[in-house]
Amino acid sequence: MTDARIAHPALAARRMPADEAAALIAPGMTVGMSGFTGAGYPKAVPQALAQRILAAHGRGEAFGLRILTGASTAPELDGALAKVGGIDFRLPYQSDPELRARINAGLIEYMDIHLGQVAQYAWFGFLGRIDVAVIEVAGILPDGRLVPSTSVGNNKTWLDLADKVVLEVNRRQPPGLDGMHDIYYGTALPPERKPIPLLHPGDRIGEPYLKVDPAKVVAVVETDGPDRLGRFAPPDETSRRIAGHLVEFFRHEIRAGRLHEHLLPLQSGVGNIANAVLAGLREGGFGGLTAFTEVIQDGMLDLIGEGIIQTASATALSLSPEGVERFVRDIDTYRKRIVLRPQEISNHAELVRRLGCIAMNGMVEADLYGNVNSTHVAGTSIINGIGGSGDFARNGFLSCFVTPSTAKGGAISTIVPMVSHVDHTEHDVAVLVTEQGLADLRGLSPKQRARQVIAHCAHPDYRPLLQDYFDRALRDSRGKHTPHLLNEALSWHQRYLDTGSMKP
Amino acid sequence: MTDARIAHPALAARRMPADEAAALIAPGMTVGMSGFTGAGYPKAVPQALAQRILAAHGRGEAFGLRILTGASTAPELDGALAKVGGIDFRLPYQSDPELRARINAGLIEYMDIHLGQVAQYAWFGFLGRIDVAVIEVAGILPDGRLVPSTSVGNNKTWLDLADKVVLEVNRRQPPGLDGMHDIYYGTALPPERKPIPLLHPGDRIGEPYLKVDPAKVVAVVETDGPDRLGRFAPPDETSRRIAGHLVEFFRHEIRAGRLHEHLLPLQSGVGNIANAVLAGLREGGFGGLTAFTEVIQDGMLDLIGEGIIQTASATALSLSPEGVERFVRDIDTYRKRIVLRPQEISNHAELVRRLGCIAMNGMVEADLYGNVNSTHVAGTSIINGIGGSGDFARNGFLSCFVTPSTAKGGAISTIVPMVSHVDHTEHDVAVLVTEQGLADLRGLSPKQRARQVIAHCAHPDYRPLLQDYFDRALRDSRGKHTPHLLNEALSWHQRYLDTGSMKP
Ligand SMILES: CC(C)(COP(=O)(O)OP(=O)(O)OC[C@H]1O[C@@H](n2cnc3c(N)ncnc32)[C@H](O)[C@@H]1OP(=O)(O)O)[C@@H](O)C(=O)NCCC(=O)NCCS
Ligand SMILES: CC(C)(COP(=O)(O)OP(=O)(O)OC[C@H]1O[C@@H](n2cnc3c(N)ncnc32)[C@H](O)[C@@H]1OP(=O)(O)O)[C@@H](O)C(=O)NCCC(=O)NCCS
Repeated sequence: MTDARIAHPALAARRMPADEAAALIAPGMTVGMSGFTGAGYPKAVPQALAQRILAAHGRGEAFGLRILTGASTAPELDGALAKVGGIDFRLPYQSDPELRARINAGLIEYMDIHLGQVAQYAWFGFLGRIDVAVIEVAGILPDGRLVPSTSVGNNKTWLDLADKVVLEVNRRQPPGLDGMHDIYYGTALPPERKPIPLLHPGDRIGEPYLKVDPAKVVAVVETDGPDRLGRFAPPDETSRRIAGHLVEFFRHEIRAGRLHEHLLPLQSGVGNIANAVLAGLREGGFGGLTAFTEVIQDGMLDLIGEGIIQTASATALSLSPEGVERFVRDIDTYRKRIVLRPQEISNHAELVRRLGCIAMNGMVEADLYGNVNSTHVAGTSIINGIGGSGDFARNGFLSCFVTPSTAKGGAISTIVPMVSHVDHTEHDVAVLVTEQGLADLRGLSPKQRARQVIAHCAHPDYRPLLQDYFDRALRDSRGKHTPHLLNEALSWHQRYLDTGSMKP
Repeated sequence: MTDARIAHPALAARRMPADEAAALIAPGMTVGMSGFTGAGYPKAVPQALAQRILAAHGRGEAFGLRILTGASTAPELDGALAKVGGIDFRLPYQSDPELRARINAGLIEYMDIHLGQVAQYAWFGFLGRIDVAVIEVAGILPDGRLVPSTSVGNNKTWLDLADKVVLEVNRRQPPGLDGMHDIYYGTALPPERKPIPLLHPGDRIGEPYLKVDPAKVVAVVETDGPDRLGRFAPPDETSRRIAGHLVEFFRHEIRAGRLHEHLLPLQSGVGNIANAVLAGLREGGFGGLTAFTEVIQDGMLDLIGEGIIQTASATALSLSPEGVERFVRDIDTYRKRIVLRPQEISNHAELVRRLGCIAMNGMVEADLYGNVNSTHVAGTSIINGIGGSGDFARNGFLSCFVTPSTAKGGAISTIVPMVSHVDHTEHDVAVLVTEQGLADLRGLSPKQRARQVIAHCAHPDYRPLLQDYFDRALRDSRGKHTPHLLNEALSWHQRYLDTGSMKP
């Protein structure tokens, strides 16, 4: 009994309820799942699996899994499995509150890794055997090829490497997705690798479908539910000011002849500020733009719809419910302008460098010398993970990091003497932006950078404190290349832990 | 009056003494010089320039320069200019004691930058205008093309971008260098970039000569002096044990099917330990190897000479006086096996990733969680710089860092609770090796990594102290993803500054 969504007879015959599919997954297995920033994750099997784990725990049996995905998923996957204590190990990115709480309580081992490197790490054998892949797709073609869903992520890799495959066919995903993807099957292991033949963000170098060996498919589960994504806040004054500083900087670079008026392919990180920056580009009158990025959020979708961004490459659509509506309404237009790729291609060092992306990412904090923390609160609690920020910051044309100058109502300065965790080193950070202003760190020594960061990025409440630290470090530091007072360098964070505020 | 070394008539006519050439360089200028790890730097003009600066200072005139090179040079360049206070700003790498002392005294602004990114940074306009290039070459052809010297570094970029060019023709460099270089002229600015057509370490994708617009050449200075390089210590017991652990690990990876018996292209860092690791590969019976690396030191030259390494790509020859003798004696053999390239190609992210280099670099210290400091003593004094270690560690197949487990006779543990400066983040470090053993960090969470590092890398004197820190951090840390006690995390370094030892 095939239909348009499940058109391959043998696979149609492997349809079963989610709980039967979940029963094929045993304790201790490594499971590669689909899902990238809340898009295209399996909706049914992880929840059925959570039930199964709960029952096993009820019987006093151990049942933990190693869960690998594309990036973050949603409560139906990470939340459900974390809540029942079903995850022993997790990579490469997460943002679910239940999961995060357990990681930071020390109950789940989490490995943070560049999103562009996960696939090759698996192929190298560095992540061990992949027992099962659980992958959401939008449909199965008569020949068994798969129409990818709203994210591609690491699906190609999990499908290729896993011993067994469980497919979730989600009838809610728009049929119009068919043709939007570009799955590159030309990767190889060294020493057999060849150049990746992509020259422009919109180039199609692969095929629209994922392949799977039908003999490996042990279950096909039907679902009919939306990706669960929150709404974006309308840009507030802080975000608008950050966006304004960046847009002004781009204008300045165009006047100086260092940027073309169509800029270079944009990479825009996750979150509200990223959305606001894109809105700022529209208001600033930019056009003829392209994007080579990881996720397409509402803000970017708008610019693509309006033709301000002409072509966008990404690995996932991370849209609000309203964004999904707009997307489905004009899907034939979007299909001409959007290419969804595996994350090893969307974030590939070779391509980010060749195309010369303008990388714009959120951060937790930066220090005087331009080191950036994207992941940890006070050095110890992880928020989400590094995601693709390193893939783009290291290899792009311009590496920009943005944040409000304070957090938690002013109790935290996001500009600190020394960051409590480093995700992007001084060598990989060109521009820092807060609502206070923009520090252009290109071509500067550490001390020159410190002066820019204090003057342009720090909040006025913290600026004198930073200046005082820098002055005293200049005077008393053993080495004066990167002046620091080691017994004070992390004291702001300690004070925040002790008193709830970084203010003395 | 042309001869075999200076065969272009118009350029031969621009011969002049070094002091006349130095007189063409004015205060405040940005000067791009040749030189990479003590090879192929100009021998005469910088010293004449130092005299000129000294005289100006004697007259009470300011005279400082911005000096950009390939990497480190020698006393005749960095030492001479630093000593007279002639350097205001320096990038991208240095190792001269006079220069380093002034940087750490806060007298010279130094920018540390990935060696593979310097050229594009200059082309992007991020380093400002390049006023003069001072480049050592081995000869000038009748048509004005230049035979590069013992290093290529950023010479192509400085020659292309500088307003004026000063050439030093060094008659001491072996004529047999002719044909060893491969200068790729296919780079471009985005959005015009194309794939770099290199598939194997030995591929030649360019031409053997550097080009220069003869109209820009304002001076040709003749010199006749050797590159000034120190001798290597014969591998000591510590280096041999480090090498042994790595070789054993490679064997293990071959047995596990993750590495081929010919390994993958080797990148080997600077210093004595790197030399020892190569010797270890020979003793371990390896053969059919290749290298895609930055510098060729004596240890690698030996393996190339013996045919154990069949092909080696680098940007510089960093040889001891004895190494130079061996090199010159068998230069026709070496020319078939060695390709010297611009450093933007030898260290290019695209190529390091495609070829899948095995990166082996020295480090200053590593912490429990696998973050690596390659540059700073106690967070504030720079040693040399990050060099190419990031180009290879981030993009290679395997990223290994090596160090003795202690420094300064045991007063310093190179394994610490938290590194005092981060050059390579937890995301970029796969393997840590000391003489104590090897920690394989692939696929591990921070806490899993800490257990490996303590067990395998720490010195027995410091192991209980590290275990105690980790245990207390596990108990008392606010977040338990990356457990830390912020008021203790850098206390080992502070204790070293206060007492001369990290021991309590
Ligand atoms: C850094 C990052 C967390 C910022 O996210 P955001 O949505 O722009 O920023 P927010 O201001 O909402 O901050 C998120 C949370 O961190 C907190 N926070 C921000 N800065 C902080 C700081 N310096 N110290 C402590 N907490 C901080 C905020 O208060 C907020 O907490 P809450 O949810 O409890 O209110 C986010 O950009 C991220 O995960 N980046 C890494 C991955 C990445 O860059 N991906 C894109 C690659 S394509
Ligand atoms: C890290 C690096 C300095 C180690 O160099 P090395 O020659 O292998 O190591 P050494 O053990 O001789 O250490 C060099 C100096 O640093 C000191 N040192 C080493 N570890 C230290 C530590 N943890 N704290 C303080 N000092 C330390 C040594 O005592 C020595 O000082 P000395 O010259 O006064 O005796 C060197 O590898 C480097 O500069 N790396 C960065 C660049 C790079 O990796 N380039 C290769 C890319 S292709």
